[in-house]
Amino acid sequence: MPILRLALAQTNPRLGDFSGNIDAIMGFVQKAASQGADLVAFGEMALTGYPIEDLATRPEFLHRARHELDDLATRLLSAGLGSTPVVIGFPNGPLALPATNPAHSPTAIAHNAAAVLQDGRVLGIYNKHHLPNYSVFDEHRNFRPGDSVMIVHVAGCDVAIAICEDIWRDGELMTSIADAHPGLLLVINGSPFEREKDEVRLPLVRNRAAQTKAHVAYLNLVGGQDDLVFDGDSFVVNASGKLLARSPQFVEDLLVVDLDLPDSRTNGAQIGDGFTVVQTGGTSRGHVALRTPAPAERNEDTREQIWNALVLGLRDYVQKNRFPSLILGLSGGIDSAVCAALAVDAIGNDRVFGVSMPSNYSSDHSMSDADDLADRLGIAIRTEAISSLVSPVEEQLGLNDVAAENLQARIRGIILMSLSNAEGHLVLTTGNKTEIAVGYSTIYGDSVGGFAPIRDVPKTLVWELAKWRNEAARRQNLVEPIPEASITKPPSAELRPGQLDQDTLPEYDVLDAMLDAYITRRLGRDEVVALGFDAPTVDRVISLVDRAEWKRRQGAIGPKISEMAFGRDRRLPVTFVRS
Amino acid sequence: MPILRLALAQTNPRLGDFSGNIDAIMGFVQKAASQGADLVAFGEMALTGYPIEDLATRPEFLHRARHELDDLATRLLSAGLGSTPVVIGFPNGPLALPATNPAHSPTAIAHNAAAVLQDGRVLGIYNKHHLPNYSVFDEHRNFRPGDSVMIVHVAGCDVAIAICEDIWRDGELMTSIADAHPGLLLVINGSPFEREKDEVRLPLVRNRAAQTKAHVAYLNLVGGQDDLVFDGDSFVVNASGKLLARSPQFVEDLLVVDLDLPDSRTNGAQIGDGFTVVQTGGTSRGHVALRTPAPAERNEDTREQIWNALVLGLRDYVQKNRFPSLILGLSGGIDSAVCAALAVDAIGNDRVFGVSMPSNYSSDHSMSDADDLADRLGIAIRTEAISSLVSPVEEQLGLNDVAAENLQARIRGIILMSLSNAEGHLVLTTGNKTEIAVGYSTIYGDSVGGFAPIRDVPKTLVWELAKWRNEAARRQNLVEPIPEASITKPPSAELRPGQLDQDTLPEYDVLDAMLDAYITRRLGRDEVVALGFDAPTVDRVISLVDRAEWKRRQGAIGPKISEMAFGRDRRLPVTFVRS
Repeated sequence: MPILRLALAQTNPRLGDFSGNIDAIMGFVQKAASQGADLVAFGEMALTGYPIEDLATRPEFLHRARHELDDLATRLLSAGLGSTPVVIGFPNGPLALPATNPAHSPTAIAHNAAAVLQDGRVLGIYNKHHLPNYSVFDEHRNFRPGDSVMIVHVAGCDVAIAICEDIWRDGELMTSIADAHPGLLLVINGSPFEREKDEVRLPLVRNRAAQTKAHVAYLNLVGGQDDLVFDGDSFVVNASGKLLARSPQFVEDLLVVDLDLPDSRTNGAQIGDGFTVVQTGGTSRGHVALRTPAPAERNEDTREQIWNALVLGLRDYVQKNRFPSLILGLSGGIDSAVCAALAVDAIGNDRVFGVSMPSNYSSDHSMSDADDLADRLGIAIRTEAISSLVSPVEEQLGLNDVAAENLQARIRGIILMSLSNAEGHLVLTTGNKTEIAVGYSTIYGDSVGGFAPIRDVPKTLVWELAKWRNEAARRQNLVEPIPEASITKPPSAELRPGQLDQDTLPEYDVLDAMLDAYITRRLGRDEVVALGFDAPTVDRVISLVDRAEWKRRQGAIGPKISEMAFGRDRRLPVTFVRS
Repeated sequence: MPILRLALAQTNPRLGDFSGNIDAIMGFVQKAASQGADLVAFGEMALTGYPIEDLATRPEFLHRARHELDDLATRLLSAGLGSTPVVIGFPNGPLALPATNPAHSPTAIAHNAAAVLQDGRVLGIYNKHHLPNYSVFDEHRNFRPGDSVMIVHVAGCDVAIAICEDIWRDGELMTSIADAHPGLLLVINGSPFEREKDEVRLPLVRNRAAQTKAHVAYLNLVGGQDDLVFDGDSFVVNASGKLLARSPQFVEDLLVVDLDLPDSRTNGAQIGDGFTVVQTGGTSRGHVALRTPAPAERNEDTREQIWNALVLGLRDYVQKNRFPSLILGLSGGIDSAVCAALAVDAIGNDRVFGVSMPSNYSSDHSMSDADDLADRLGIAIRTEAISSLVSPVEEQLGLNDVAAENLQARIRGIILMSLSNAEGHLVLTTGNKTEIAVGYSTIYGDSVGGFAPIRDVPKTLVWELAKWRNEAARRQNLVEPIPEASITKPPSAELRPGQLDQDTLPEYDVLDAMLDAYITRRLGRDEVVALGFDAPTVDRVISLVDRAEWKRRQGAIGPKISEMAFGRDRRLPVTFVRS
C-alpha cells in the first residue's frame, strides 16, 4: 500500500494581499517539500483570503486572482518546487454566462474552486458543488455550483477533493466520491469559529470517512477577517475514523503526516462522466520513516478557546488594516476591562491606550479601578474629565433626564474619536452582546468605534472570561490583568447617580437565558414564557430587542463566536411592528 | 368568451401589522366586490408586508401569519364577502424539513407563497419557484422553492399564478404555464423601485404574454419598507402585449378591469402531475358594461419619479415607525435643502424642524440661505451656535487640523441627537451618495441620524432634483422651496475657512461618472481609466471608496433608487487590501 506524505498548510491569508499571500504560500511549499511531502494543500480561498463576498462578482478581481494563480505556479517551478503538487483554494472566473439560467444568481460569474498546480501549470480545477447560503454565508449569491468530481492521482494514490460545505450536505457529490473509492478525501475549508463547533466537525468527518471508506483530511484557514475568525484546528482521520494528526487552533501550522492508503483505482486515467482525474505524474517518494505527528494538545476549555478567538479576531483586524495602535475608554467596569486585556494580548501593551473620562457621577472606585487595570496591564492611561465639556451643551440646549444622560456618553465618544483623529489609533467600542441586544447603549456615545471585540459575548460570559483570564495568569504566576473589583461590583452605566443596570433589566443570568431563547434559538414569545420566565418581563425584553434593531445596524463589527451573532447571522427588518 | 372582472389591489402593507393590514385588505375586497369583481388579487406578501427577511426562519412568525390568513378568510365570509375569490401573498410555513437536503438552506422553513381564499377557507396555495438571491434579495437563504404550477379556475376562465422572480427566469415553470394555456397569467410582486426599471418590466411582461399567449396582470406592492420603495405601477396587458390598464405609481390603488378571456381548458379539473387546479366555484357574473379604465397617466420624467420614490420612502419610514416629527441640520447647502424639501413633502411642514448650527467658519450666506429655506418651506428653524461648545473640547484635548474639523461636525451631531432625545424627533442625515462613496463625511458627525433620504442620490442628481422641484413649484404657482443660492453656490463642507469640496476631489460630474463605472457597473481600475479618466485620479478615488467601507457599514439606511445602492446591493469586505 503506498504511503502518501500529505502536508496541510493551515495559513492566515490577508484578503486581497496577493503578493503577501503568495510569499507565504511559497514558504509553506518550500518547507513541505523539504520534508518530502508528496502533496501540499492550502485552505479554501487561501490565495485571496476569505470570504471575498461580492468581490466574486467583479471581473477585475477574478482576472487578477487567476493571473496570480498562474504566477504562483510559475514561481514554484522557478524556485525548484514545481514537482510537488499543490492544491489551493481560489475564485474561478469570470465565467461565460448562459443568458438566463433559472438556477443561478444573475450576478454570479465564478466558482468557489480548488486548483491543482504542478510543473508551472494548473493541471485541473475543482468547483465547489454545495454553496452555503445561510448563517453568515451568501455563496449562492456569489458563486455558481460545480458539477464534476475531482480525483487527483498522486504518489500511486487517489485523492478526492471537496470544499467545506460539500461534506455537510448529503447527495450526489458524496455518493459519487464514495463510488470512486479514493484512498483519501481532502477537504479544504474556510470554516469560522463558533463555540462548540469542533464538536460537530469531528463527527461529521468521521461519518464521511465511514461513507467513503477513505482517510479524510480536513484543512481549515486560520485568522480573522472582519467579523469572522477561522480557528484552524485542521486534522486527519483514517477510514475507521481514528484521529491521526491535528493542528493547533488559532495559529498557522504545517501538518505533515504519512498516510497508508490503498492503491489507486484510477491509475490516473479518466473514469467516466462527472469525474475528472488529474494525473500529477511522479511516484511516491518511498518514504522510509513514517511520520505520525502527535495530535496537537486539544484545549477543551471553551473559555480559553473563546478568549483566543477574540484575541485573534482583534489582532488580525488591527494588523491587516495596518492600525498602529488601539484606544478605548476605561470606565472601571468589566466590559472595558476585558476589552483592554484582549487588546493587550492581541498587540501588546505598548500599543494600547486607555482613557478615563469621569463625570460628576462617576464613583471614586470607577476611576481607581481604571487606574488599577491600566497598571496591571502596563498600558498608558490618561484622564479627560467631561463635566466642563458636558455642561455647555447641557445648558445651551436645556437638557435633562435621558437627553442629559446620553450627552455624557456622546461627549466621551467625541473624546475618543478626537484622540483617534489626532493620534491615529483604532477606537474600540466595548459593548457586550446583552446590551447590544436590548439597545442598552447610547448610539454615537459608547457605541463609537471601528471594532467591537466583545460584541458577540453575553454579559454572563464576559464575567466568565474575566475570571478565566485571571486564573490563566495565576497559573503562570503572572499579574492578574482584571481588578477583582471590576468583576465583583454590580454593573452600572453610571449615567445617573447610583444607577445600576439591575434597576431596569432582569438579573443578567435571567436576561441572557431569555435572550438566548429568543435570539439564538429563534423561539417565539409564548415559547420563551413557557420556559419559565415572567411573561411581562419577556414582553418587555422582546420589545427592547426588536426596537434596538436600528442601533445594531449602525454598530461596529466584531468577532463572531456564537452560532447566532448580530450582523450577517441575523437579518431582520428595522421597520417591524410586533402586534 | 367569458369576461373576467379582475380587481388588482395595489396596497401598502405595514410589516408585522397584521390587524392593520387585514383591515385594509377587507376594505379593498369590499370595494372590489361592490364593483362586481370576479377575482381580487393582492401583492407579494401583502398579508405580512415585505420583505420579511429572516422572520421567515422564525416559527412563531410563520404560525402567526398562517393564523391570520385563516382568520382573514373567516372574516371575509362573515362580512358577506366570502364568495369572491381572493389571491394574496403570504409566507407558507413552518415546513417539516427533510434532515439534510443539499439543495436547501438549512434554516429555510417556509415558502414564499400565494393563497387562494374563498368561502371562509384556503382553497389552495402556490409556492414561488424562483427565489431571487442577488441584489437586495436573500430569498434562497430564507425560503424553499415550490415545484407545482397553480391554475385557478374562476368565472369560466383559467388563471395561472406566479410570484415576481418567477417570470424573470426562463425554465420549466414558464414553459409549464404556457403548456396549460391559461387565459390569464396573474403575477403578484414585491418589486422595488429603481430608476428606469419600468423600462424593463413592461417588455418582460409582454414577452411572457407572447410566450403564454395569455393576458398578463402584473400587480405590485406600493410603499416604503426600510431601504426599499415599492412603486406600485401595476398593469395589465393582453395576449398581444397591448397595455389595457395601469395603476399610478407611489399610491395605493384598486384597478378593476374586464378581461375578455378564452374558455377554460381545465374546467376546474386536475390536469396532471405538477399542476394544481383550484376550483373556485360560481360562474362569471355576466358583466354587461365592460370596464376598461384608462391607463393611469404615466409620468415619464425620471426626476419626478425619483422625487416621489424618495418622499414615499421617507414618509413610510416615519409613519410606519410612528415618529411624530423630523429634525435635520440646515447648513444652507444643497443636500440639507433637498432633504428638508423631501421631509416637508413627506409629512408636512408642521412636523419638520430645522437647526442651523453655525461655527466661526460658517459664511454669512450659509446662515441666511438656511433661514431662506426654512421660510420657503414654512418650517420652524432654530439656531444653535457651536463655537462655545467646540472650544472647550478643542482646548482640553489640544486639537487642530483634521481632528478639529471633525470635532465641529460631531458637536453638530450631538446637538441633533440631544434635541431628538429631548423632543422625540427622528434625525435625518443629509449625506448624498457621492460623499458616502468617497467617505467624505465625519462619522458620528454629519452622518448621525436614523434615516438618510438622499443616501442613494449622487451629487449631480441632487442638483437635478433640486432644480426639478423648483420647476414643479413654479408650474403650480407655488413658492420654490429651494433657494437659488443653495443650488448655484459651490459645495463646501465648510470645515475650514474658504474650504471647497473641489479642492480635494474631481469636479462632481467627473467624479459621479467615475463612481458609476467603478461601483454600479463593477468596472475594474484599468477599465475605468480606459473610459478616459485621469489615471492617478482614478486610483485616488478608488482608494477612497474602498477605504470608506467601514464608515458605510455604520451608516443610516435610506431609500434605494438605483440598481446598486450601498447596503444590501453591495456586500464587500472592510478588511481588504488593494494591492
